[in-house]
Amino acid sequence: MERKRTAIATIGEFGLIRHLTEKFPLRNTSSLKGVGDDAAVLDYKDKKVLVTTDLLLEGIHFDLQYTPLKHLGYKSAIVNFSDIYAMNGQPKQITVSLGVSKRFSIEDLEELYSGIKIACDNYGVDLVGGDTSASMTGLCISITCIGEGDSDKIVYRNGARPNDIICVTGNLGAAYMGLQLLEREKRVFEGNDNVQPDFEGKDYILQRQLKPEARRDVIAALQERGIKPTAMMDVSDGLSSELMHICSQSNTGCRIYEDKIPIDYQSAVMAEELNMNIVTAALNGGEDYELLFTIPLEDYEKIIPVDNVNIIGHMTKPELGLNLIGRNGEEIQLKAQGWNSLQ
Amino acid sequence: MERKRTAIATIGEFGLIRHLTEKFPLRNTSSLKGVGDDAAVLDYKDKKVLVTTDLLLEGIHFDLQYTPLKHLGYKSAIVNFSDIYAMNGQPKQITVSLGVSKRFSIEDLEELYSGIKIACDNYGVDLVGGDTSASMTGLCISITCIGEGDSDKIVYRNGARPNDIICVTGNLGAAYMGLQLLEREKRVFEGNDNVQPDFEGKDYILQRQLKPEARRDVIAALQERGIKPTAMMDVSDGLSSELMHICSQSNTGCRIYEDKIPIDYQSAVMAEELNMNIVTAALNGGEDYELLFTIPLEDYEKIIPVDNVNIIGHMTKPELGLNLIGRNGEEIQLKAQGWNSLQ
Repeated sequence: MERKRTAIATIGEFGLIRHLTEKFPLRNTSSLKGVGDDAAVLDYKDKKVLVTTDLLLEGIHFDLQYTPLKHLGYKSAIVNFSDIYAMNGQPKQITVSLGVSKRFSIEDLEELYSGIKIACDNYGVDLVGGDTSASMTGLCISITCIGEGDSDKIVYRNGARPNDIICVTGNLGAAYMGLQLLEREKRVFEGNDNVQPDFEGKDYILQRQLKPEARRDVIAALQERGIKPTAMMDVSDGLSSELMHICSQSNTGCRIYEDKIPIDYQSAVMAEELNMNIVTAALNGGEDYELLFTIPLEDYEKIIPVDNVNIIGHMTKPELGLNLIGRNGEEIQLKAQGWNSLQ
Repeated sequence: MERKRTAIATIGEFGLIRHLTEKFPLRNTSSLKGVGDDAAVLDYKDKKVLVTTDLLLEGIHFDLQYTPLKHLGYKSAIVNFSDIYAMNGQPKQITVSLGVSKRFSIEDLEELYSGIKIACDNYGVDLVGGDTSASMTGLCISITCIGEGDSDKIVYRNGARPNDIICVTGNLGAAYMGLQLLEREKRVFEGNDNVQPDFEGKDYILQRQLKPEARRDVIAALQERGIKPTAMMDVSDGLSSELMHICSQSNTGCRIYEDKIPIDYQSAVMAEELNMNIVTAALNGGEDYELLFTIPLEDYEKIIPVDNVNIIGHMTKPELGLNLIGRNGEEIQLKAQGWNSLQ
């Protein structure tokens, strides 16, 4: 069956924005006025306002050959929510700006927005503004997320101290291995049109790449147990790179242990298949959207029962540097090889 | 003298962001934490939070053949400030996300940021976040502006009533005529490399296109005289299109008078030279970043002494439609021909 394709020009810019956004309800009391004026109006009362923004460009941040538009919409929203959780806050509103070339139809944009809507529904976030315009080339998505935080609960990157415990949620490297799998199947497919991609038993790593989640659950659990991290950020560029940010901003060193780095079974199998080192993938792969945080040593007993949290090491004095302790006890200096799209 | 060109790859993403943003001070008490964490942290206390966002794409919204990067940076910031003033608010923070292809050097981005910085300095706005990444093709600039408003002073598009006076600031059509001039000189230049562009006596329309200002002065003057508009927006797509937004959201019609539409002398001369109708340019040209607003009839005496404000007509009952009264008294129905980049 052929999919319907309606040219965007038939509806015009304002009609298009209305069409795409009319199904988004405003549900947060802080959202006073959403789409449809020069600016959105928000009421944060005595809460602090958190603002983060991400620009996603076709060919750099995503490949539409294997990324369904609905997933892309979902992920674009999630990566922003993740930044707000990483401040120990709650995402409340987003604005979405799109640049779209002529090869996209209204139905394509409906797909993209349906993914954004599911993310907003799942995380209780309101769409309050945005902008849609033409683009000369590919798809360009810019999302800004606004969230709320209590002044005594916001967590920055600069509060870690020597001896703090280093924790990371979930597992690392899965999104990167999912990406490697997709890239491999794309190459196979390009070589032979009759081959169907082989994704059996690899659903988890694909999901981690194509439809990641933000760690609202862990933020809620920490709150419940009265744990306030001393420093926190989300793992978007890779564990090594994020540890460097926290250590440099907190003026500490760190020791993490290779055998404590959480790795999922599917990620390990995929790495084996591709002849890659899974620890390297976990350290440098990125796009996990897990949380990396530090807590005082006194909170050790409190953190143990929290689901999905792994202790991977501890902070040290800055002069000791950033070290990974290998399985055989060897010390390896950590280097930032975080995926850097500018190089 | 050859300009220095340093490849962006030599400095890396984080180094680049630091380099470009370190000269921006935080001066507003509402800016608690700027660049350098997962999100900016703002404190708006009892004020409302206004949020607006704009995405500017090379080849669609700007042409680097005649747009200096410094001017582009300035304008990118101003168009966002203008949206906040159009809510009767004050811009306080911006985030800037860039997508840049390899043909841009660090010095190019310094130029762009120097323009953003001048705009921030002039309007008292803090840069609090952003994102820089590679782009496959052109330059992509996404700016989000956050501003403050008092709940009893924010002005929407939907509050106009029949008999309200329609006002517009400054003059219209100048930015459009500036664009026409630049496009003409580009064509001439492309035809013959020895020809220097002829911009004599056209500085004002060029400035309106390349380095527009936002109407902070008029917002301050209205405040001083105790005038609160019933509806307001900024003129970015053209007077016709903006009037339609206000009339449709306020459920009114309108009558504006051709001979009241403010036109600058240089714009009129340029239109003459290019054999264009200057009123059409004023109605449909866009990018003026003037304010269009309505006030109650009772405020007529109060508005007269306000500098840079022109009365161009009045609101009517919705069934009377949107009409322009020509110089000979003829009624012309207004149509939205606002510049629509999607068509």
